[in-house]
Amino acid sequence: MKRELFDADHDLFRESVAEFLKREVVPFHAQWEKDGIVPREVWVKAGTVGLLGHGVPEEFGGTGLHDYRYNQIVNEEICRAHASGLGITLQNDVMAPYMVGLTTDEQKRRWLPGFASGELITAIAMTEPGTGSDLQGIRTSAVRDGDEFVVNGGKTFITNGVNADLVIVVCQTDPDAGAQGFSLIAVERGTPGFERGRNLDKVGMKAQDTAELFFDDVRVPTANLIGTEGQGFIHLLQNLPQERLSIATCAVASADYVLQHTIEYCRERTAFGRSIGRFQNTRFVLAELATEVDLGRTYVDRGVRLLNEGELTVEDAAKAKWWTTEMCNRVMDRCLQLHGGYGYMMEYPVARAWQDSRVQTIYGGTTEIMKEIVGRGLGL
Amino acid sequence: MKRELFDADHDLFRESVAEFLKREVVPFHAQWEKDGIVPREVWVKAGTVGLLGHGVPEEFGGTGLHDYRYNQIVNEEICRAHASGLGITLQNDVMAPYMVGLTTDEQKRRWLPGFASGELITAIAMTEPGTGSDLQGIRTSAVRDGDEFVVNGGKTFITNGVNADLVIVVCQTDPDAGAQGFSLIAVERGTPGFERGRNLDKVGMKAQDTAELFFDDVRVPTANLIGTEGQGFIHLLQNLPQERLSIATCAVASADYVLQHTIEYCRERTAFGRSIGRFQNTRFVLAELATEVDLGRTYVDRGVRLLNEGELTVEDAAKAKWWTTEMCNRVMDRCLQLHGGYGYMMEYPVARAWQDSRVQTIYGGTTEIMKEIVGRGLGL
Amino acid sequence: MKRELFDADHDLFRESVAEFLKREVVPFHAQWEKDGIVPREVWVKAGTVGLLGHGVPEEFGGTGLHDYRYNQIVNEEICRAHASGLGITLQNDVMAPYMVGLTTDEQKRRWLPGFASGELITAIAMTEPGTGSDLQGIRTSAVRDGDEFVVNGGKTFITNGVNADLVIVVCQTDPDAGAQGFSLIAVERGTPGFERGRNLDKVGMKAQDTAELFFDDVRVPTANLIGTEGQGFIHLLQNLPQERLSIATCAVASADYVLQHTIEYCRERTAFGRSIGRFQNTRFVLAELATEVDLGRTYVDRGVRLLNEGELTVEDAAKAKWWTTEMCNRVMDRCLQLHGGYGYMMEYPVARAWQDSRVQTIYGGTTEIMKEIVGRGLGL
Amino acid sequence: MKRELFDADHDLFRESVAEFLKREVVPFHAQWEKDGIVPREVWVKAGTVGLLGHGVPEEFGGTGLHDYRYNQIVNEEICRAHASGLGITLQNDVMAPYMVGLTTDEQKRRWLPGFASGELITAIAMTEPGTGSDLQGIRTSAVRDGDEFVVNGGKTFITNGVNADLVIVVCQTDPDAGAQGFSLIAVERGTPGFERGRNLDKVGMKAQDTAELFFDDVRVPTANLIGTEGQGFIHLLQNLPQERLSIATCAVASADYVLQHTIEYCRERTAFGRSIGRFQNTRFVLAELATEVDLGRTYVDRGVRLLNEGELTVEDAAKAKWWTTEMCNRVMDRCLQLHGGYGYMMEYPVARAWQDSRVQTIYGGTTEIMKEIVGRGLGL
Repeated sequence: MKRELFDADHDLFRESVAEFLKREVVPFHAQWEKDGIVPREVWVKAGTVGLLGHGVPEEFGGTGLHDYRYNQIVNEEICRAHASGLGITLQNDVMAPYMVGLTTDEQKRRWLPGFASGELITAIAMTEPGTGSDLQGIRTSAVRDGDEFVVNGGKTFITNGVNADLVIVVCQTDPDAGAQGFSLIAVERGTPGFERGRNLDKVGMKAQDTAELFFDDVRVPTANLIGTEGQGFIHLLQNLPQERLSIATCAVASADYVLQHTIEYCRERTAFGRSIGRFQNTRFVLAELATEVDLGRTYVDRGVRLLNEGELTVEDAAKAKWWTTEMCNRVMDRCLQLHGGYGYMMEYPVARAWQDSRVQTIYGGTTEIMKEIVGRGLGL
Repeated sequence: MKRELFDADHDLFRESVAEFLKREVVPFHAQWEKDGIVPREVWVKAGTVGLLGHGVPEEFGGTGLHDYRYNQIVNEEICRAHASGLGITLQNDVMAPYMVGLTTDEQKRRWLPGFASGELITAIAMTEPGTGSDLQGIRTSAVRDGDEFVVNGGKTFITNGVNADLVIVVCQTDPDAGAQGFSLIAVERGTPGFERGRNLDKVGMKAQDTAELFFDDVRVPTANLIGTEGQGFIHLLQNLPQERLSIATCAVASADYVLQHTIEYCRERTAFGRSIGRFQNTRFVLAELATEVDLGRTYVDRGVRLLNEGELTVEDAAKAKWWTTEMCNRVMDRCLQLHGGYGYMMEYPVARAWQDSRVQTIYGGTTEIMKEIVGRGLGL
Repeated sequence: MKRELFDADHDLFRESVAEFLKREVVPFHAQWEKDGIVPREVWVKAGTVGLLGHGVPEEFGGTGLHDYRYNQIVNEEICRAHASGLGITLQNDVMAPYMVGLTTDEQKRRWLPGFASGELITAIAMTEPGTGSDLQGIRTSAVRDGDEFVVNGGKTFITNGVNADLVIVVCQTDPDAGAQGFSLIAVERGTPGFERGRNLDKVGMKAQDTAELFFDDVRVPTANLIGTEGQGFIHLLQNLPQERLSIATCAVASADYVLQHTIEYCRERTAFGRSIGRFQNTRFVLAELATEVDLGRTYVDRGVRLLNEGELTVEDAAKAKWWTTEMCNRVMDRCLQLHGGYGYMMEYPVARAWQDSRVQTIYGGTTEIMKEIVGRGLGL
Repeated sequence: MKRELFDADHDLFRESVAEFLKREVVPFHAQWEKDGIVPREVWVKAGTVGLLGHGVPEEFGGTGLHDYRYNQIVNEEICRAHASGLGITLQNDVMAPYMVGLTTDEQKRRWLPGFASGELITAIAMTEPGTGSDLQGIRTSAVRDGDEFVVNGGKTFITNGVNADLVIVVCQTDPDAGAQGFSLIAVERGTPGFERGRNLDKVGMKAQDTAELFFDDVRVPTANLIGTEGQGFIHLLQNLPQERLSIATCAVASADYVLQHTIEYCRERTAFGRSIGRFQNTRFVLAELATEVDLGRTYVDRGVRLLNEGELTVEDAAKAKWWTTEMCNRVMDRCLQLHGGYGYMMEYPVARAWQDSRVQTIYGGTTEIMKEIVGRGLGL
């Protein structure tokens, strides 16, 4: 169905994003996949053309706009360019609410200019080897010692983990306070005792650096506390809907990218004397997928409006997240199958997309956690 | 997600519809199910309170409003009241475009007052025993003889078939003209040679009269031609998107009705010492269904806006129709299962709803036909 | 795949069963559906030709054979005849293990001749209005008073509930003994205080009497205790695998019956100028269903061998039960859809089969309970 | 369910295969994945311990046994060792019927000793860049020139393509003879004009060499014709059931391997204070998968018996192939999800298995082709 979300300004912005990706990203992405990381200078280039810093006040180098549609456009174009290594989505959609919404003026002055320019790459570290979706199990501790926190522990699965200059670490600051005992502490590159582990070998998303982080008596000034001490979980909970809607925007856009590619393939590839798109089964499968992508997009677009209006609920975001990511996986799987043997060859985009997208039902809260959230919202 | 479709006028109208159904329909529906038909006087009462005649000009007793949201509200409330016997949706959503949009002034004067008041019940007769979705196979013929058509043939699966005072019959008027050889002819109650067959024994929708119709040298004045001779298929094609969106509005509303019922049931019913809604499987199933209903509703609401704006495509309607009706069947099936043995007892609403809704993926164009339409729209 | 289960004796027996059903059951079943019950004399006729009493020793009028394949053949032929009202499967597969395996010599003399001849119709009463799959919730009590039990309580969803001459009632005989506090007590027709409630109005299985039973100070001789007092649950648990495999044999046979019917329909029915079986989607759907039926049958056949050898585990039976019944529902649903509008007409066998089979994932332990059993067997 | 297929000899053989894999394959497989190929000497070692040459007469170094269960055991143990790079299954299950069943005495003497010892690695080349499942589209030609064939063309997706010493190439030998115009010609390593293309970069199966092959005026003695000239397709068709059952044995064994692994993981991994296997959703998912694996295994075991008895039909093999491979993909996907973030890390076996197994619904005839075969067998 025809979209109704964007106006002319958005369309112009989309063009500039697409142009940037085409010029500065697409030609190099295969190499970055081999390297396991995107070079830092790409971030700065992205900052120059306005891909970063949405929501950052103009005085700190951002656009000052509070309109998630700009973020959505960046995500959609990154997916359409199949630039799965670019951690910009995380910076814009996940980090910005912390960096802009929870920071003090002093912190803003220190960090936001680099955050908007791409010189300060950020990450958030929640998950630990022993905890997945269960945040209460976090064991990384931060103990106050004068005007410093002493951080000890380890984190894993950290997106932008190698590139990040600043990592917001979810720490237990008061073991006796239960859910009120966790705080967010920014740990900066070069702080003694802060080490990166391996760049993890993942199923897909090969150009995105995902790492383990280790903290061994890392001393961080209390001025690096993000938000309120002991309110870490509340800060996380407030920002999760946007993070999840963000993943949903990517799921829909990735699914659409591969679907359009596959429709094209099925129009051109022939078997038994006709294009394989002429086979009823192919046509039905593609019709099903096209319908599902359209439903997902309409739903996410509605969610974006509600987010902009401050009315997107935790349950809405959970619904959008699990459904679109599961749908995306179905699209990838069915499209790979329609490619026959070529679908199993890495040189075909569908193969890489199939691998890249598989993480989406896991990160940002698994499908199972999303269903828990929705189910509880039903009073069950 | 929060809906954005309706304003205060719509809300008021919804209340009056709900009130009417509660008073005049719900208490009697079980009896109508036994009778296999809804009494004609209910139609007149419905007309009195404004459930009929949306889109009919005020001079003929209608509201003159061209806003499909009013139709949608009628459908939603009928589903919420589980009044599956009421053929009003057909009259409003399927028949009105023919009766209002394609009729001459003379026809309007003859028919629209009764159409809006509920005194003239209408139906459309496409399907024949030998043809399902394949309209080209229609064999009912209408041969011009002076200022009359002589109609011969038979139709089946005609909703409102017993109650209908006026039936628009899709006839072949020129066997040599291919798809351009079909026309729409209104056959009125009492015309000699026009007979009704059995009220068909269906899986569900027991209070809705669905019948076979027979035409044996039925002489109909040419003044009863609806639209342009030979353009029957084009008229049908133009109106099918609204018919299909109409079915989609019902599918979403029916699914939601049964889902809400089942959530309530699972909160209250206990097993193994706790409410069955506390079991993770129950919670996950209901979360999945709640998500799907929400996606369906958001999509259909968007479709209603596009319909009002004249921008709903044939493919959009096909997508909405197949997906929401298949979703509705899933909801019914899963909710029946969650009721355990009670789900198999007719006294529980879910049992009746399961039977009622099963036809939705079939009538108005099967899921298979919808996928063909979507698939062709992809250029396959 | 070619079956390997039966030898020539079985084939002869199958022929005689089929012949009996064709002559004595099929012509009358539609009337029995209207009546809501199968006449008792049919049971006696069935007994005469050897459909009953498998496993009953010859001295009491049975065959003395301990070979479940005979039971399976009865079930398969009943399904192939679509005689869903016949409660003979319950008598053979569910009741026989109690009536033969757990009875005293005195009880055998009293009951087995009638049990084998069809003059004594039996039922088992587990479920209560407040308990579904949760047997621990049973509240029907039996209190010893001299050489009698005084039974009080109510049961529901009792197959053969109206016709039954003898009902094995699961009673709580010792409220302090937990799971060891339940016993099986045979309550016979005509015992004062034993009343039948309504013949329940079900979604399908219309010719099978399913009833509520009420016990109001019903005095039953202690000689009617079946098995060991306090061991009721253990007796149930031992017999549940056969009951569940029995349901699986029916699920496979019913699915196959409707599938064969639908294949025939799709070969003959034409649309758009060719048989609908020539459409790739139809062919694929039927190929999927045929594959699933074949898998189910092979699995159940293997289960029957293991049952005969005393090696069928509780988990095996649970797997067979849930998978084949869910598969059967899929077959019914897909086949109904392939019939188009005719699938929604009760005169088509698929419509009735769709309604009949829906209970299978519920009774004998729901799919959810089966998955619990399998899951626990995995050590989870 | 308890298997019934194997006797003591098979169990002994299984132990020796498992021992060999544990010692000679498992410790090195990770390196072979990096290399993209398994070293040739592993083949010779495998031959020494009897993994190769089933069906090869004893005079040529084989076991002379015609019992597919030995092949099945090799496949099952390879899957249990997760040694997806080993092309031995292809040699045993796919190549042996050609090499033993269709060869002349002279060819047997030339090739079978090496075939059984592992010194002669073989492959079959059907697919071409422009043809997938559609063999009629084959364009590689072989033109007789005296006592030689001159072969020209290219093949792709050839398993063992790099290692193979002898490739059976499906060639068009008579362009005017339609389906009777194709023949099988053995092209040996070192024949001038026979070149290998790249070792293809696949989604998974990284240690298995899969290559393109090019034939440029390759002169092959007519003594290398396998089977009858012009009967190539018939030879292929006769051997496809065994090839497809072979894939099915692997699909079941791979699924079981990952399932057992995941059950273990879910028993040990904790979240929210308990093992994740204690969550009902986890338990249900694993119960579903365990059921499906068991159904698949029972079906395939039955198929193996029928194959040994010469009674496995083309449709049986097609059913077994598509259902078990699709089931295997479901198992992989669900098990990956249950691993949470770890499922996306290549160091976890489930990640590699998910990638490896994805090809199974494609090679050896896609799921779509299998459904065509089953559907046609239904007379549709």
